[in-house]
Amino acid sequence: MTPPTPSGAAPEVLERAARVVGPAVQAAVGRLSPALLEPLAHHLAGAGKGVRGALVLVAAAAAGAEQTAGLGQAVGLPGAVAVELVHNYSLIHDDIMDEDLERRHRPTVWAQFGIGAAIIAGDALAALATEVLLDDPTPPRVAAAAALTRATQEMIAGQADDLAYETRDAISVEECQLMEARKTGALLACSAALGPILAGAPTATVSALADFGQHLGAAFQAVDDILGIWGLPARTGKAVGNDLEQHKKSLPVVVALARAGDRRAALAGLLDGELGPAEVAAATRMIEECGAEAETRALADHHFGAALAALDRADLVAGPRADLVAIANFVTERDR
Amino acid sequence: MTPPTPSGAAPEVLERAARVVGPAVQAAVGRLSPALLEPLAHHLAGAGKGVRGALVLVAAAAAGAEQTAGLGQAVGLPGAVAVELVHNYSLIHDDIMDEDLERRHRPTVWAQFGIGAAIIAGDALAALATEVLLDDPTPPRVAAAAALTRATQEMIAGQADDLAYETRDAISVEECQLMEARKTGALLACSAALGPILAGAPTATVSALADFGQHLGAAFQAVDDILGIWGLPARTGKAVGNDLEQHKKSLPVVVALARAGDRRAALAGLLDGELGPAEVAAATRMIEECGAEAETRALADHHFGAALAALDRADLVAGPRADLVAIANFVTERDR
Repeated sequence: MTPPTPSGAAPEVLERAARVVGPAVQAAVGRLSPALLEPLAHHLAGAGKGVRGALVLVAAAAAGAEQTAGLGQAVGLPGAVAVELVHNYSLIHDDIMDEDLERRHRPTVWAQFGIGAAIIAGDALAALATEVLLDDPTPPRVAAAAALTRATQEMIAGQADDLAYETRDAISVEECQLMEARKTGALLACSAALGPILAGAPTATVSALADFGQHLGAAFQAVDDILGIWGLPARTGKAVGNDLEQHKKSLPVVVALARAGDRRAALAGLLDGELGPAEVAAATRMIEECGAEAETRALADHHFGAALAALDRADLVAGPRADLVAIANFVTERDR
Repeated sequence: MTPPTPSGAAPEVLERAARVVGPAVQAAVGRLSPALLEPLAHHLAGAGKGVRGALVLVAAAAAGAEQTAGLGQAVGLPGAVAVELVHNYSLIHDDIMDEDLERRHRPTVWAQFGIGAAIIAGDALAALATEVLLDDPTPPRVAAAAALTRATQEMIAGQADDLAYETRDAISVEECQLMEARKTGALLACSAALGPILAGAPTATVSALADFGQHLGAAFQAVDDILGIWGLPARTGKAVGNDLEQHKKSLPVVVALARAGDRRAALAGLLDGELGPAEVAAATRMIEECGAEAETRALADHHFGAALAALDRADLVAGPRADLVAIANFVTERDR
């Protein structure tokens, strides 16, 4: 094993991982039908930060995989590619379902190429994720493929609940948290677990890192929900109040409805109707007055703490462990 | 091994397989999120004949798997369930892409429940197919999951080409055949190969049955393309001329354009424009005058013969082998 590399700041860690994962994702996508390449190239050109792929490589190194520049890329890379493929497939399909026209300040795939092209492009990435892992079906890779497929199914269940909740009243805070644990947490939990699985780490290590990822997902989603209402468009790439306009039952909304007391009917009525700028502003003010922003932030803090506590339950290599903490701070916006 | 059961007529064989595969598919789908169950129940209630699942079970028995009522269901069932899940996922997504409002005389999932619900329902079936096989990751099941994922990717490539060809001129007969081999043939080839793979049959048997399925797919698709232009709505569940209205570059269309000589521009112009009943009738007449119906039928005959020849290259159990031939006759409409 090469000596641990000193940990860097999260943007540097993510950049280091992206230099490995990005080209590997491009190579995998290059195997697909030429008819799919234009929409996929468009989508991938607006690439995100690659948090999930980085988690796989850093967690593999933290679990003792041979390191190159602090990353367990020799065993982790197929897992990193596979989670990034699943994540991007879910973004392409979710953008159709949510009727989102822009992602990262660029037209979404369906907005640019049509719904059919976006459905089939997502379908291709989903199958490719399994192909990448089963190309060389060693027991750890098969275990990784099974874990990723289960996480994908959880993510799908979360998205299905999210869609159903848009037109359903009386979502409890617990239902909302379960939906978000599935929609966002499951794939982050899988990302953190996949490195140890591929490195052949003990079950306790796999489980501790899965818990880290699950809580990190909950913390991230709570922060993202706050940004979905109060975030700056330049930062989020979406319009302010976007989640309210779309009748999303995000965590601050559900918390506010649960805490609104005798103003509940007024808030629910406002949220159910057509929301122009004036209604969005009024609803946002009521949500704040219910203390929902503060409570959502407290939930994010709780899950952030639980994520770090999970890391203490595993015997991890120091440098990559510090990188996991740096990534956790970064995705929950604690470092700005 | 129990003694071979005498072969039946295809409808009886399909019915026997469906009694085993149908409940197993329902049980697998029952694991999914409740939010997905209504659209999936709607889709599955209009179930097809279950040809792909039946092929898995019959081919498993033909390759020597222990038989129950002529079916190798003990080892084949997870494969049969998985191919049916993939097939139904593709139908649900293709109906969105093709803007088809009806399937089997009932509203399609997207027409009934919306595009978002149909996308997510299909996504769930796709992941479930892999889950069903990797639940118990024995080497044959892992090999089956890998083969099914590759076939799914081929099917996706074929659908992507099919969509791209709708707006592209000058598709050669060879391009059209390759597209159909991917779109339809790959999953039928996989269905026929999955039983032998799960039964641990020799590579030569797997390969012979894959070829059987691939040629059967080509023959079936050619016949289906003929029905898409000349079929009776009561039989196909679609409107007459449906493929022409949708600008589908199906085999008879591509053959006609290749054989139209100096009438090519006239036919292409007719097919590219808006096609009302009069234009559909005129285009159909021109396609017939080019000899395209007869040539497409000859291609179907060629592939049907090649499918049967592939069976001769494997050492198969007589009863189930006869059932494979019966199914081949049935899906290419030779038995009516």
